[in-house]
Amino acid sequence: MKYRIKGGLLVIPGAGGTVQATKGDILIGNDRIEAVGDIGFQHHHAEDIAVIDAQGCAVIPGLINAHCHAGMSLLRSYADDMRLQPWLEEAIWPVEAVMTPDDIYWGTLLSGLEMLKGGVTTFADMYFAMEDVANATVEIGMKAVLSLGLIGIGPNAAEDLLATKAFFDTWHQGADDRIHVQLGPHAPYTCPPEYLREVVTLAKELGAGIHVHIAETEDEVDGVGQTYGRTPVEYLDDLGVFDTPPVLGAHCVYVTNQDQAILADRQVGVAHCPQSNQKLGAGIAPIPAMRALDIPVGLGTDGAASTGRLDLWAEMRAASYVQKVIDRDPEQLKAKEMLYMATRGGALALGLDDTGALVPGFRADLAIVDLSAAHLTPCHDPIALLAYAAGPSDVRDVMVDGEWVVRDCHLTTLDENKILRRCREQSKTLMQRVRGE
Amino acid sequence: MKYRIKGGLLVIPGAGGTVQATKGDILIGNDRIEAVGDIGFQHHHAEDIAVIDAQGCAVIPGLINAHCHAGMSLLRSYADDMRLQPWLEEAIWPVEAVMTPDDIYWGTLLSGLEMLKGGVTTFADMYFAMEDVANATVEIGMKAVLSLGLIGIGPNAAEDLLATKAFFDTWHQGADDRIHVQLGPHAPYTCPPEYLREVVTLAKELGAGIHVHIAETEDEVDGVGQTYGRTPVEYLDDLGVFDTPPVLGAHCVYVTNQDQAILADRQVGVAHCPQSNQKLGAGIAPIPAMRALDIPVGLGTDGAASTGRLDLWAEMRAASYVQKVIDRDPEQLKAKEMLYMATRGGALALGLDDTGALVPGFRADLAIVDLSAAHLTPCHDPIALLAYAAGPSDVRDVMVDGEWVVRDCHLTTLDENKILRRCREQSKTLMQRVRGE
Repeated sequence: MKYRIKGGLLVIPGAGGTVQATKGDILIGNDRIEAVGDIGFQHHHAEDIAVIDAQGCAVIPGLINAHCHAGMSLLRSYADDMRLQPWLEEAIWPVEAVMTPDDIYWGTLLSGLEMLKGGVTTFADMYFAMEDVANATVEIGMKAVLSLGLIGIGPNAAEDLLATKAFFDTWHQGADDRIHVQLGPHAPYTCPPEYLREVVTLAKELGAGIHVHIAETEDEVDGVGQTYGRTPVEYLDDLGVFDTPPVLGAHCVYVTNQDQAILADRQVGVAHCPQSNQKLGAGIAPIPAMRALDIPVGLGTDGAASTGRLDLWAEMRAASYVQKVIDRDPEQLKAKEMLYMATRGGALALGLDDTGALVPGFRADLAIVDLSAAHLTPCHDPIALLAYAAGPSDVRDVMVDGEWVVRDCHLTTLDENKILRRCREQSKTLMQRVRGE
Repeated sequence: MKYRIKGGLLVIPGAGGTVQATKGDILIGNDRIEAVGDIGFQHHHAEDIAVIDAQGCAVIPGLINAHCHAGMSLLRSYADDMRLQPWLEEAIWPVEAVMTPDDIYWGTLLSGLEMLKGGVTTFADMYFAMEDVANATVEIGMKAVLSLGLIGIGPNAAEDLLATKAFFDTWHQGADDRIHVQLGPHAPYTCPPEYLREVVTLAKELGAGIHVHIAETEDEVDGVGQTYGRTPVEYLDDLGVFDTPPVLGAHCVYVTNQDQAILADRQVGVAHCPQSNQKLGAGIAPIPAMRALDIPVGLGTDGAASTGRLDLWAEMRAASYVQKVIDRDPEQLKAKEMLYMATRGGALALGLDDTGALVPGFRADLAIVDLSAAHLTPCHDPIALLAYAAGPSDVRDVMVDGEWVVRDCHLTTLDENKILRRCREQSKTLMQRVRGE
């Protein structure tokens, strides 16, 4: 199927890690973008092209959620305003201990529904029961880079390495290349050296990338420093964790100048999660410094159990605003940088070379954003409007690989109400299991 | 007209500056809340009561925007990512110099439309052409505490004092007490002592409250310190600015312990504007400390020209998240505190004693929030869900003084599309005037 998206404000690549806006059309053929801007007269009246009116709308690359735990959305609003250790030990872990693959499947559909309707087309995920996550992702019509969380100090460490291999063999580049699989060593403080060596060996054997939490809290930096005499980044680098690109480091809040040089040299992608890092009291990652070193930086929501919402628009604002106030400098992390990070920056951090920009030859993942609401009126600068005023509710249509998955704010692939009803049920029975009923 | 709002999750006052949720009904008679919770059998089947179904919804007090410049919304996305002085001198002031009362009237309708649809029923405003702001506020069906901005060092200083007196005489407690008028000395750095003395004299003569920007930036503190040898709070207090309650201080970012003691002693309300203060690189106000001193603290958006959006939901999250990360403590500014600040806290800061809580005898200002969206599913804790995941698009119905002004997400009072079309036109001709065309 071919589509011509007509008359919108197109958000296209700008200079040096930014975007810019231009009025024009986009031509989509099969799963690719064929032309952007002036699409050529021969396409204007072709009968086999469906024309989509985007007057008064912005057309943006599909947003990339660079770090998520989609299966956790059944725990949204379950435990907030708590310090990290009691949050994990008293709230989250006891629930995860009785969570079923079915919970994770439905939780992922719920996350997918929220993300797609908000313009997110791809997410990077680390959790359990990843086959179910992959199935849910494909069924709802999204793309994902998936990794089974590997806890080296946990009881299933060896078994999960085998499961990861099987998951990679079955799913990597599966579903028309919509699913990528990475290895997911959880974090420096949960994976001892001997285990990380096994992970690296497997990654090299499979040619797989890696997704790992890095330097999220000061406690982690202190602990790794005391145990191994180096920073989390140095620890991972020394063990070869950055040897099999693409490598995606979630958080990277506490990274020294030397750490940043390592991340830049190895081209490790960074998933910046500003709302999660703020809400959990972790800290604020040095994003302008890392971007200046050409480290690929994307934006992530983390899980709905920590952040409350999988909203890349809110992450753009949170990242920009907190940086401006920390530096007492409103010129930091401008609107055009935030939209880049939420799209192309994220794609590069995830190792998706032909994704995240409205460029001929790229995968046709995009969102049409209706600019007619009061909170988007008037429009002096569409980029500022998108970064600082738009939200999930302004997303009208979403396309993944050339297929419409959201039209007029409604999911086309699955029954939204069925997902919502089932997730409410699923969350009730999950709570009954937690209470031992 | 009487209404019974049935079966919702009611957000009612909790202990010590918080809210809590309880299931129940609300009975509205004329412009007041008559009963909350168990409303009594005699009301269950009365024929003159219209029943509104709120199953699956939260019912919250109307949100209070404690600091705004509603007339500035025509400048949304006009100038972002700029430092304060160039932003004012190169962008904002040249436009304001050619702005007409008509621009401000339509800008206020646009702001009102955005705020009402997002659940905001009352706002505090400081700007120009305040008669037009008052007319727009009443026509769209909102309430406001309005003040003409008084620039003591400006060319209209004396004239604006007279205009303020006339505005007060005409509008204070006007439109069925929906409009309150305060005096609006702009800020310590724009109002010299002799002018503030005149303002205070007039305030005492009229029995009027005061709305003033206080200690928004370090530059202001430095400048006032150099000129007057004291802090902005001390400067205002010494001149009697806090003598005529209610006094509303916007920002209060840089306040010493001694300043906080003064604000507490004089019961000066604080309008905390976390997104504006972050986006302009100003700083972060010490909110937990001020709340601990029982200073009434509300949340404000500031103008759409600085913040991009008049979204109290985003302000709740920004305030809570940035405090948690600054203190490295996720227990700071909890969900139940944020909802209090966005409702009752704001009302108290504005001197509206019978507003901002679902309590019998209080003004019937409320919003019904639909909790059925994916991003609000499941509901383990409605207060956490409202503070950390809900947004303007979840607001279904809004009541002001017992009248529905938003039903099923549509404004009932004025034609939304007419406001939007006219504001786009108005912004175009404003830009033509700026360019001298």
